[in-house]
Amino acid sequence: MTYCLGIKTRWGLVLASDSRSNAGLDQVSTFRKMHTLVLPGERAFILCTSGSVSLSQSVMTMLRQDFQAGHGLAEVDSLYAAARCVGEQVRRVAATDREALERDHISFNVHLLLAGQLRGQEPDLYMIYPQGNPLRATRDSPYLQLGEAKYGRPILDRGIRFDETTLEEAAKYALLSLDSTMRSNMTVGPPVDLVIYGADELKVRWHCRFGEADPQWRTSHSLWDQARRQAVQSLPEIRFADAADRQA
Amino acid sequence: MTYCLGIKTRWGLVLASDSRSNAGLDQVSTFRKMHTLVLPGERAFILCTSGSVSLSQSVMTMLRQDFQAGHGLAEVDSLYAAARCVGEQVRRVAATDREALERDHISFNVHLLLAGQLRGQEPDLYMIYPQGNPLRATRDSPYLQLGEAKYGRPILDRGIRFDETTLEEAAKYALLSLDSTMRSNMTVGPPVDLVIYGADELKVRWHCRFGEADPQWRTSHSLWDQARRQAVQSLPEIRFADAADRQA
Repeated sequence: MTYCLGIKTRWGLVLASDSRSNAGLDQVSTFRKMHTLVLPGERAFILCTSGSVSLSQSVMTMLRQDFQAGHGLAEVDSLYAAARCVGEQVRRVAATDREALERDHISFNVHLLLAGQLRGQEPDLYMIYPQGNPLRATRDSPYLQLGEAKYGRPILDRGIRFDETTLEEAAKYALLSLDSTMRSNMTVGPPVDLVIYGADELKVRWHCRFGEADPQWRTSHSLWDQARRQAVQSLPEIRFADAADRQA
Repeated sequence: MTYCLGIKTRWGLVLASDSRSNAGLDQVSTFRKMHTLVLPGERAFILCTSGSVSLSQSVMTMLRQDFQAGHGLAEVDSLYAAARCVGEQVRRVAATDREALERDHISFNVHLLLAGQLRGQEPDLYMIYPQGNPLRATRDSPYLQLGEAKYGRPILDRGIRFDETTLEEAAKYALLSLDSTMRSNMTVGPPVDLVIYGADELKVRWHCRFGEADPQWRTSHSLWDQARRQAVQSLPEIRFADAADRQA
């Protein structure tokens, strides 16, 4: 399983991803799911992948190869065109692999998040489906998730507001969302990659990776547990009507 | 969809359930999913149901009919026997309905939570599967969920400890868990039923029902949003290594 998320606010972008991959519960390994393609000062892309590692590797290999040759994401003229470029690459891999997979009842499963910015344009965030079509994050729905999305969603719903949430706050929410998910689903696991991209930086300046034993990660984890318990205790007591006679 | 949960601590039991039922998104209705069977001073049972409303109604109708005639749950001699009694009733409904349902590719889906106490014994909490077999909550896993369980689980994982969590706290966690779930899945909806059962009460004394407009519910909802935001803000800033030169 996988859990990745992207957040878009007026100040920029935050991306976070886990690193666990599994084929069944008895075959677990670690793969990085966050990738960057950057022409400093010109354009910066951060991609996260979920689904089959084999398929996402093929997509990323071809995207990077084109990029380094000055094509593909190196020459698109908008983030929308970038999302379409990624989608086209997904479709090329589908053309190569989908039939062989489906013959053995394996679904063609690869999703991507694409975040980034071109010089002179706004930063933006897209999801690309296995069919190649893109979905854009909006002011009303300023975050997108891949994979095991449910455990980590309530905290995002409560916390993320396009016009209000700073990038530093968004990064904390992203880590807490990952933390909640890793606690409940053991097929989502560390290390966690985190990128904060501030609008107009046009390079990937703030990237970090948290292992399970990372002191920052552990401190944040236990402080959050404490803070949350205190928050619950601070809620007013529930007022009950005495229901002794009800037996409906 | 449905979301119900039961919590067992050393001080007793907390049960909470939503009331929304849907057959597709265009057919939504309200059904109470929490039921009580009580012989005051002797035995008290609280049941929550998920799955097909038709099936859970059949199970509850027969359980109540037997109970009122002094049989079934009125004469079992332990909570384990009570869970088996509910399971037997599920199997009788399966014998009546399962074949007809499966002929039309409808799965036989009914899950129940059974919480309660017999005089002189400990309170206890079970889940009963559609196959009729029971699962008991334990000190290590002191809560059980039915239905749309993922959204509301992280807060329970962090908050509920058999030996530490008071019933009042457990009730707050239960409501927050419901609130998170209703926010993310519109097929889980109000009113919310909540019961706190203190050990040795042997009646259902504290029951309440929150509609969407209930002032207590709304206050708790917005205070929790505030408290949670403050808790996130209180976390230490993330320390990044400057990653400007990394483009892996």
